[in-house]
Amino acid sequence: MPVEIVVDAMGSDKAPESEIRGAILACRTLDVHVALTGPEDILAPALETALGGRRFGARLPIRIVHASEWITMDDKAASAVRSKRDSSMRVGLKLVREGKADGFFTAGNTGAAMATAKMVLGGLSGVDRPALATIMPSMYGQPALLLDVGANVDSDPENLVQFAVMGSMYARNVLKVSNPRVGLLSIGEEDSKGNSLTRDTLPILRTIKGINFIGNVEGRDLFNGTADVIVCDGFVGNVALKTSEGVAKLVSFTLRESLKSTVTSQVGALLSRTAFNAFKKRLDYSEYGGAPMLGVRGVCIVGHGSSNDKAVMNGIRVAAEFAQAEVNSGIEAALVKL
Amino acid sequence: MPVEIVVDAMGSDKAPESEIRGAILACRTLDVHVALTGPEDILAPALETALGGRRFGARLPIRIVHASEWITMDDKAASAVRSKRDSSMRVGLKLVREGKADGFFTAGNTGAAMATAKMVLGGLSGVDRPALATIMPSMYGQPALLLDVGANVDSDPENLVQFAVMGSMYARNVLKVSNPRVGLLSIGEEDSKGNSLTRDTLPILRTIKGINFIGNVEGRDLFNGTADVIVCDGFVGNVALKTSEGVAKLVSFTLRESLKSTVTSQVGALLSRTAFNAFKKRLDYSEYGGAPMLGVRGVCIVGHGSSNDKAVMNGIRVAAEFAQAEVNSGIEAALVKL
Repeated sequence: MPVEIVVDAMGSDKAPESEIRGAILACRTLDVHVALTGPEDILAPALETALGGRRFGARLPIRIVHASEWITMDDKAASAVRSKRDSSMRVGLKLVREGKADGFFTAGNTGAAMATAKMVLGGLSGVDRPALATIMPSMYGQPALLLDVGANVDSDPENLVQFAVMGSMYARNVLKVSNPRVGLLSIGEEDSKGNSLTRDTLPILRTIKGINFIGNVEGRDLFNGTADVIVCDGFVGNVALKTSEGVAKLVSFTLRESLKSTVTSQVGALLSRTAFNAFKKRLDYSEYGGAPMLGVRGVCIVGHGSSNDKAVMNGIRVAAEFAQAEVNSGIEAALVKL
Repeated sequence: MPVEIVVDAMGSDKAPESEIRGAILACRTLDVHVALTGPEDILAPALETALGGRRFGARLPIRIVHASEWITMDDKAASAVRSKRDSSMRVGLKLVREGKADGFFTAGNTGAAMATAKMVLGGLSGVDRPALATIMPSMYGQPALLLDVGANVDSDPENLVQFAVMGSMYARNVLKVSNPRVGLLSIGEEDSKGNSLTRDTLPILRTIKGINFIGNVEGRDLFNGTADVIVCDGFVGNVALKTSEGVAKLVSFTLRESLKSTVTSQVGALLSRTAFNAFKKRLDYSEYGGAPMLGVRGVCIVGHGSSNDKAVMNGIRVAAEFAQAEVNSGIEAALVKL
């Protein structure tokens, strides 16, 4: 029996087109069902158009679940969650909570998605603060899972320990890393390096059974395969993530400017186009299918606002893999033992 | 009267070659004198060789000041500073303290350089913690000065306010930015976004006269010209800096791999070589000449360990500009007023 993933059809910058096309792509290439949430009068005709005029649902396992409102990128998370009680996010997450669907994906407002997931799904037992985890591209081998990247500031050592357990379980069961190496993000490899939070956390992580803790790692280790899971306070993780995005943007801007400068280099750029596309694909966050929210009672994946159809499909794939892996029961079992 | 800059000739990965060639380059192109510190029996013949066998000093204003020891990259900062009392760093910084030279540059062990500078030069009055500032490359316009990037963890709001004043003074007097915009590194633009440190610091920065505070900025704003000076705790700044370096490395690795993949793209890469060089140059930290240490009683610039001759020359140039600008008296005057 295939899993059904709910897609917030009103989340991305190009909603609902990206979501609808991504859902179609997913249903055609993966063994999943999709429920799209959003206003039926918008989604039904858009889905029919995307399917080339054929009656929707005739062939593909896609259904529409009506939600009269949606949260925009400009909405303040806290107030939008309170005021928009029939949003496509909330309706979607309710389906998961009620067991009517197996996982949820949104490319919408990250803050609102996290707040809604916490409220609707609730936390796993033993988890003080759910965390957002993101996959960083890597030079060699397995990319690293970084958490937390934005949900929690002013974390304490217990929070980081829970992040380590949750990230470890996700890496093992969803990313299929056999004995995931867990690093603590700091400013030097030696145990003595870091701030008071990392110095207090490090000795505790060394005592936790069931995780493969390798000690402190640095910012550059996010991309070089040193660790499979890297834990940090959400303020630090969010700064690291947005700094990475900033550098990637700077690089592509600068490269484009440089390649425009002479005719010779324009010809060169033309000849290298396939290579550049492979290069961009490797650095493209959308290839990795979005950030799992760990520690909530259910499956919730948050994608980038600029997600295209392929990114949405990847998000649905990740949600399906997460739902099938039963990560959450493993997290609860591991945290009970601590 | 030209300023004299002391160069730790034993600092970089390719010491003393990079330092000697950088000193020669600086003396030939800039109006500066250079003193090289390190073992005379190593430096004297190396300088003569670099000058093509001519007796050194005959033409160029370069002198050698003997120091019997040097600190390596593998040395622990704290113990090296204590045990190596005649290191090239310490001898060099003493020349600055005693007024026998105007500024100091090293491409050596950053931690040791900071500790030695604090010990030998001492702090400016009103400065609780000196900070290391680095220049981030930018897409448009003026690159941003980020501080602190490694000297201080667990900062309090007063520290960040002092960083803002010091960075502002440096940007105005050395980088020649007329009314430098100061941002506070956080995880969202709104005043309410951030951790307890940034939320406590923000209202204080709004009240400080003499700085042009523009509010919170995010990780991506390090590279897009939003602010001229960006302040943060040293743990956060160091993570951001090393994350940037990691992304830059990932990008050049991935690009190289992609361009090797087909003959067509190899030809393309060849034709685009000038553009790639321009691109790499723009992203190259060494072009910016090293990181000023702000808040110590004197001029101290720390360069990258991989500095080549050009990077050393740029470091000497920055040290000379810093020495001529009298930033430090400005910092003390501004902090007295707070």
